[in-house]
Amino acid sequence: MAYTLLLRNCAQLLTLAGAPAHRPLAGENQGNWRLLPDAYVACVEDRIVALGPMSELDETLVTPATTVLDAAGRVVMPGLVECHTHLVFGGNRAQEFQRKLQGETYLDILASGGGILSTVRATRAASSEQLLDQALHHLLGFRQYGVTTLEAKSGYGLDAETELRLLEVAQEAGRRQPVRVVPTFLGAHVPGPEYRGRPTEYLQMLVQEVLPNLHPQDVPFVDIFCEEGAFSVSETRRYLEQAQALGFRLKIHAEQLHDLGGCEMAAELGAVSIDHADYLTPAGAARVARVSGGNTVAVLLPLVPLFLRQERYAPGRAFIDAGLPVALSTDFNPGSCPSKNLWLALSVACLKMGLTPAEAVAAVTLNAAWAIGQQQQCGSLEPGKRADILLLHVPSLEEIPYWLGENPVQQVIIGGQLQPA
Amino acid sequence: MAYTLLLRNCAQLLTLAGAPAHRPLAGENQGNWRLLPDAYVACVEDRIVALGPMSELDETLVTPATTVLDAAGRVVMPGLVECHTHLVFGGNRAQEFQRKLQGETYLDILASGGGILSTVRATRAASSEQLLDQALHHLLGFRQYGVTTLEAKSGYGLDAETELRLLEVAQEAGRRQPVRVVPTFLGAHVPGPEYRGRPTEYLQMLVQEVLPNLHPQDVPFVDIFCEEGAFSVSETRRYLEQAQALGFRLKIHAEQLHDLGGCEMAAELGAVSIDHADYLTPAGAARVARVSGGNTVAVLLPLVPLFLRQERYAPGRAFIDAGLPVALSTDFNPGSCPSKNLWLALSVACLKMGLTPAEAVAAVTLNAAWAIGQQQQCGSLEPGKRADILLLHVPSLEEIPYWLGENPVQQVIIGGQLQPA
Ligand SMILES: [Zn+2]
Ligand SMILES: [Zn+2]
Repeated sequence: MAYTLLLRNCAQLLTLAGAPAHRPLAGENQGNWRLLPDAYVACVEDRIVALGPMSELDETLVTPATTVLDAAGRVVMPGLVECHTHLVFGGNRAQEFQRKLQGETYLDILASGGGILSTVRATRAASSEQLLDQALHHLLGFRQYGVTTLEAKSGYGLDAETELRLLEVAQEAGRRQPVRVVPTFLGAHVPGPEYRGRPTEYLQMLVQEVLPNLHPQDVPFVDIFCEEGAFSVSETRRYLEQAQALGFRLKIHAEQLHDLGGCEMAAELGAVSIDHADYLTPAGAARVARVSGGNTVAVLLPLVPLFLRQERYAPGRAFIDAGLPVALSTDFNPGSCPSKNLWLALSVACLKMGLTPAEAVAAVTLNAAWAIGQQQQCGSLEPGKRADILLLHVPSLEEIPYWLGENPVQQVIIGGQLQPA
Repeated sequence: MAYTLLLRNCAQLLTLAGAPAHRPLAGENQGNWRLLPDAYVACVEDRIVALGPMSELDETLVTPATTVLDAAGRVVMPGLVECHTHLVFGGNRAQEFQRKLQGETYLDILASGGGILSTVRATRAASSEQLLDQALHHLLGFRQYGVTTLEAKSGYGLDAETELRLLEVAQEAGRRQPVRVVPTFLGAHVPGPEYRGRPTEYLQMLVQEVLPNLHPQDVPFVDIFCEEGAFSVSETRRYLEQAQALGFRLKIHAEQLHDLGGCEMAAELGAVSIDHADYLTPAGAARVARVSGGNTVAVLLPLVPLFLRQERYAPGRAFIDAGLPVALSTDFNPGSCPSKNLWLALSVACLKMGLTPAEAVAAVTLNAAWAIGQQQQCGSLEPGKRADILLLHVPSLEEIPYWLGENPVQQVIIGGQLQPA
């Protein structure tokens, strides 16, 4: 069948294929996938149908109707998968950021009504249209960085009605533009202000009033913030077990500020991802890899310590060496990381966590897809997968993290469609 | 006279004006310049001719021939001044970066012919056309970030002929596109490979064979790298004195890795800027401010420690408190900081050096202009200055550093001309 889209003469085609396909890339495989020099990738409609060395291109399938991009001197790779964002929120916290820079402490700001609860107030006060507009604005920004699939968490409503509304906004945002949006329910971000000091009752409310109104086919993941000041490991375990019994897959924010054991507990329950993990030790990582059978992905968020002015970064190098699959994300949110620049996260992961360029690329593509259950659709360039493809300005893999802070994207393709710049 | 260009309804007009005009912004003035809400700025041809509150706009000067930009809900500010780059070089060092990430030490890489001398080889081997093409590519990238004036150092030739060629390439690059290029002679980057172990003889060669062929009206600045492995403080002093006697203004790379006293020495000589200063102490900064009479600008380069995986950042907050004017730059170069994202440098300066958003904005505009002697032309929005203006996406000053890693620029204007995206 004639190709509808062809990228030819790719200096390097980063396929991300070639490793065992039944689980995320781990250990040596994370940096050891198939890179083809002087290659092509061909699509029919929204699917990849063929790829390989230029010498094997079947020119008879290239017709006048084929859109042809010449990728000479350029890298071609899978679209980015952004696997951890808090996309939908009201307002922002730039004023609070400025106050922190001027020396106010987090407690000062909390005492004056700042912090996460100021975002909760702004989010509750915003109409769904306002929230949707802001979410679409941010999605456009992500798309310009080459993000083609994005996970979006609720978590700034903290009451049943608003949390459901945030998930609806995330789903509607997915319908309104080309980036695929995968929603996650994070009602258990912190106890809602009406449940201050009563985390167990708050979780009970979520189980009784929200989870029954959600369907795992629409909102596949339930997430929770396991940390001092949020939810304890035992509260978290009970909540995740209840969510699992209702058919949801599990995620956890854990070991961001302390080593409480949340990651290991969630891995035992079969969580699809454990996120943050700044305080997870290499030994803990090895246990997570073992109990999960290599199916749980550690989603590392290197821009968060940078933005929070903390020195501790997850030991990503040691995680990979321990056999734990690693993904990377911005954690886009108004409080601890208002960045949509996933390429910057990739560079900082190399610099601060010791990932190699190849490992970091796998962490924002195939492993990120695994972290949100999208590995059959996207994350690598393989026949049958969706034609989510990036044409970069740079000629080689190692230049991706090298040009610090820059957006290397020349052309974004989603489902076979060229996106405007 | 009718306006040729008008930006109206600016949510915030960051004029950077209002402080004593005869020296760089220092101390409290660095963050305390004039910000106008609901304002306009008007230009005739390449000059700013008026600005003020919208209520004072003279509508009779707005004609059908006036290009009008509506800046409602947006910040308008001076074009960025990038005051420290190594713009012109051959090749890049992405391979070396990858090797470092894989665990090779700097000495391993040096032993195998890597490091600065690999860039020198690539630069000497490149034709002027190749160097110009690459410089123009990088200048386009800078312009997309809103850089409207840029300093470009030589320093990867390290022989008389190539160093002169690099300065010619920088000047030609300035003529070929709209960003103003201010060249600096940094032949004294390190001793050339032919002068290994003979730094004094190398400097003597530069004084005899290069400086006489340069004219301060074309190449206003002479710079030197004062550091272990490059040039000592006494070698540096003698060289700078010789350059000064020939009519050049002085710059220095100093206190990047050790506190040798280079900054203070250069300030005594009246250097226009002292660059890096990561190891300059607050007491040293106070002495620099005093001996220079407030005329020497500390150019801080926060992306360099980030890229070199070092923990030490110049104490910018303390410098400002000590009365030393601070500017910020990327230090764009292939070895220690291949970033053109000056906005990222601004954010990292807030996070790692404790600058406030207002101080950081002054550091990439008016103080950066002072650092390269361009303060009469650019760096602030004032009648008579060149119409180098940025229209940002964001509505307020504090959102500039907040959206970490992003490019907030919606429209770049250079000399009154709207630049394509
Ligand atoms: Zn999060
Ligand atoms: Zn430099």
